[in-house]
Amino acid sequence: MRIYGDSISGNCLKVKWTSKALGIPYAWVETSVVDRATRTKEFLALNPAGQVPLVVFDDGRTLAESNAIILHLAEGSHLIPTAAYDRARMLQWLFWEQYSHEPYIAVARFQVKYAGKPVAELEPRLVERGHGALTRLNDTLADSPFLVASGLSLADVALVAYTRWAHEGGFDLAPYAAVTAWIGRVETALKIED
Amino acid sequence: MRIYGDSISGNCLKVKWTSKALGIPYAWVETSVVDRATRTKEFLALNPAGQVPLVVFDDGRTLAESNAIILHLAEGSHLIPTAAYDRARMLQWLFWEQYSHEPYIAVARFQVKYAGKPVAELEPRLVERGHGALTRLNDTLADSPFLVASGLSLADVALVAYTRWAHEGGFDLAPYAAVTAWIGRVETALKIED
Repeated sequence: MRIYGDSISGNCLKVKWTSKALGIPYAWVETSVVDRATRTKEFLALNPAGQVPLVVFDDGRTLAESNAIILHLAEGSHLIPTAAYDRARMLQWLFWEQYSHEPYIAVARFQVKYAGKPVAELEPRLVERGHGALTRLNDTLADSPFLVASGLSLADVALVAYTRWAHEGGFDLAPYAAVTAWIGRVETALKIED
Repeated sequence: MRIYGDSISGNCLKVKWTSKALGIPYAWVETSVVDRATRTKEFLALNPAGQVPLVVFDDGRTLAESNAIILHLAEGSHLIPTAAYDRARMLQWLFWEQYSHEPYIAVARFQVKYAGKPVAELEPRLVERGHGALTRLNDTLADSPFLVASGLSLADVALVAYTRWAHEGGFDLAPYAAVTAWIGRVETALKIED
């Protein structure tokens, strides 16, 4: 399969890490958001949403949305808990990530690192909600080594992606000790080098 | 199980409709977002995210995030396609709903209907992205009776929730004929009366 992805996007790296962890062969097609390579006519024909990551399977079928892709790739693997409730909690984190974490933590990083906005000029609501998300993670991880009680899962893959880069958006992770320790555990487990 | 939900919230109604469609008994606990019933100490102890819907199972375990809840409740039912790729496409729509549809269509409706903002004063970006989401749905539904080719699924349950109320946020659905016809099909299939 081909993964259309941007190496500066945590959403895209989730797909790469999941593929590597599960030994799924892939070809990476670097597709820059900043250069608007996701807005060309050719790319929009593959993904009308104009977003990466996008996976194109060998039979030509496509799949978008980072968390849908990793759920599909990891089906039946150790990255998805077998107990129904644990699996549901993993899904809870995956949806929470896209609605209550990524729009603050990832967006702040993009604005600061790629759009050149000074941290002090970030919208206060963005900063407040980002810290809210980090607090929520820290409270959970103070009691549990991974987000779902059963162990490492896609919830950790998805949440670590932008959390490990939070400082690039001006979020100091020092007060979030449980988060910092968890990032190290997940990076080791997934052999993350990017 | 108890469903803590707000009857004016499409996210909450998804859980009710799924339970009814599958014959799962539930007690509905009306929990008003506008009255800040989701921000009380008691509620935050149940769901630290301070959001509805929240399900509390008979054994006391909890589950949040509307799309995680309906995926859990519907596991093994006709609302989840059996073929792996169809299931993945359903997941793609569920994540797209929360990231690229609800933040525009539902937020505009909330601002207009519950916060009293005139439609003309909605943020242009909100309106533009809302129409983008409706266009995407319309393009898909012009070729297919339901969002996933295999038939009615949770993708329709999730997307119909706020799409059927889009006019309350100032989005005229008349130009989206395929969307309008699909809303009718899904309402009939799910026996939606709310």
